[in-house]
Amino acid sequence: MTERKATALSCANIAFIKYWGRKDHDWRLPLNTSISMNLDNATTTTTVIFDPTLKADQLLIEDTETTPKAALRVTEHLNRIRKLADTYLWARVVSRNSFPMGAGIASSASAFAALTVAACAALDLDLPERELTILARLGSGSACRSIPAGFVEWHAADTSEESFAEQIAPPDHWDLCDLIAIVQTEHKVVDSSKGHELVDPSPFAAARLAAATRGLSVIRKALMARDFVAFGEEVEQEAIRMHAVAMTSQPSVLYWSPETVRILQAVRTWRAAGLPAYCTIDAGANVHVLCESEHAPTLKRQLHTLYGVRDVILNRPGPATRLIDEHLA
Amino acid sequence: MTERKATALSCANIAFIKYWGRKDHDWRLPLNTSISMNLDNATTTTTVIFDPTLKADQLLIEDTETTPKAALRVTEHLNRIRKLADTYLWARVVSRNSFPMGAGIASSASAFAALTVAACAALDLDLPERELTILARLGSGSACRSIPAGFVEWHAADTSEESFAEQIAPPDHWDLCDLIAIVQTEHKVVDSSKGHELVDPSPFAAARLAAATRGLSVIRKALMARDFVAFGEEVEQEAIRMHAVAMTSQPSVLYWSPETVRILQAVRTWRAAGLPAYCTIDAGANVHVLCESEHAPTLKRQLHTLYGVRDVILNRPGPATRLIDEHLA
Repeated sequence: MTERKATALSCANIAFIKYWGRKDHDWRLPLNTSISMNLDNATTTTTVIFDPTLKADQLLIEDTETTPKAALRVTEHLNRIRKLADTYLWARVVSRNSFPMGAGIASSASAFAALTVAACAALDLDLPERELTILARLGSGSACRSIPAGFVEWHAADTSEESFAEQIAPPDHWDLCDLIAIVQTEHKVVDSSKGHELVDPSPFAAARLAAATRGLSVIRKALMARDFVAFGEEVEQEAIRMHAVAMTSQPSVLYWSPETVRILQAVRTWRAAGLPAYCTIDAGANVHVLCESEHAPTLKRQLHTLYGVRDVILNRPGPATRLIDEHLA
Repeated sequence: MTERKATALSCANIAFIKYWGRKDHDWRLPLNTSISMNLDNATTTTTVIFDPTLKADQLLIEDTETTPKAALRVTEHLNRIRKLADTYLWARVVSRNSFPMGAGIASSASAFAALTVAACAALDLDLPERELTILARLGSGSACRSIPAGFVEWHAADTSEESFAEQIAPPDHWDLCDLIAIVQTEHKVVDSSKGHELVDPSPFAAARLAAATRGLSVIRKALMARDFVAFGEEVEQEAIRMHAVAMTSQPSVLYWSPETVRILQAVRTWRAAGLPAYCTIDAGANVHVLCESEHAPTLKRQLHTLYGVRDVILNRPGPATRLIDEHLA
């Protein structure tokens, strides 16, 4: 019996309606339906090698052994896939990101999407996309949104089988740009798994959920119509709502850094001066600045002038998680 | 007939449960009861001279003529007092602050408290404190809290007569310090009168109101018991709740600057390291850092080390608005 190997490349995604709070933690069932876009320039490449000579799973991220906690989460995810393939082979997992980890770019989303697709391929499991999204979701909720291409909706549901992600528009539907202003590359203090558990105590949790549900229709409609202003207004409000819930949880979680506020204020000033751009922020300090492609060069230049902005990554709507032939190991 | 003159000195106040949102704009009836402390080192001095030779009210703040809008608001307030005193004399009003205007220190509170007390004295109107608080409230809501000494509660009510402020503890009840970290002296973009009108559209308005009502009991009790940790936890949460409501209103109002977040994060770090201090923020970018007096010197020194902190003003519980003999004009 020889080793069985596959490599997958997956985009991170940016949510316009956020995944924040779960109705079931073990099954990672979200409180609300979310909408996102894959980011073509923020990717994870993962090679999975099931190898009969291994005595345990091995996990290398950026050529470094990870914490036992991260390794355990990967083993638990591989167990789900091994069970489906009816195998007991241990695996070597080698993964690299095109962006810094844990700084508010959803590295766990692209990581678990790539892991899912690579592991299934290595074991010759030929699952339909919908099943892959459900499987990826069990590893990391937002990972399901990185499986399909382009603009994706992840359905909130009461059962695992109904909580899948699907494309609502292909990448070429809209030349929307996401400029990630990187302000911090240290690992954030509270990871987003903890964040989801903090949701209940915020006095704003119920109101945020209702607002996200209303916002979902607004954003879906604006996205389909390519109505940038209607889209951007709601996206920025949703991001603020999500962070307001985190800030008002107990203990309070403030993901923002001084630079986060500097960028938020600058984009509002530029917008008032006629540059159409809106912000969203994931569970971290980086700001994602959204614009239509004609404004991306100006916006990128202006973002670089702000104190504390270390880098700006330009993303367009990205493809589905896919298998590639260049292996990392 | 000769000129009739009086001068009053009033402290600004910092709210622990915030005044945010009104149930009646004309009568300045607040949505919720608030609690505050007078700030002995952030004061306004106002001289009012009713002068038969004047053809209109005159208003000088920091030796400068103000905007017509500010002058009109003062004239409207003087009209209330002239009506009570049954006089038609115009007045010259000269006012000076010990702190920069419009930067999140409640200058309109101390300004309207001092104006009310000076104007009533000049016209020999001898009103009980409760009536003075109601009168001051009609000029600027939070001004009513600057009338009594020390720690003050302003009651939400359905009628003007019931929405008064009163002392709940004298200044010497608790040696609480408020260190105002001044990060911005420019006039803020949205004044707090506008802020109150923005409250309705926030999806969090109702939840914030319920939380403020619960928080009121917590803070009153902790304040009476001088339980600093219970007090500080709730004060900081209430401030974040108020700003979350402002941020999620439409249009969104973000009073914070990068420095606001730097101070919030620093105080949390210091607190985790054993320095008992909590933050609150009014409608502006400055941060008020609360501590018991034994920690004030350390905290003041540490705040001065933060980038962007231009000054730190140390305040202790302040006296009532009072008449003084040194006139500004």
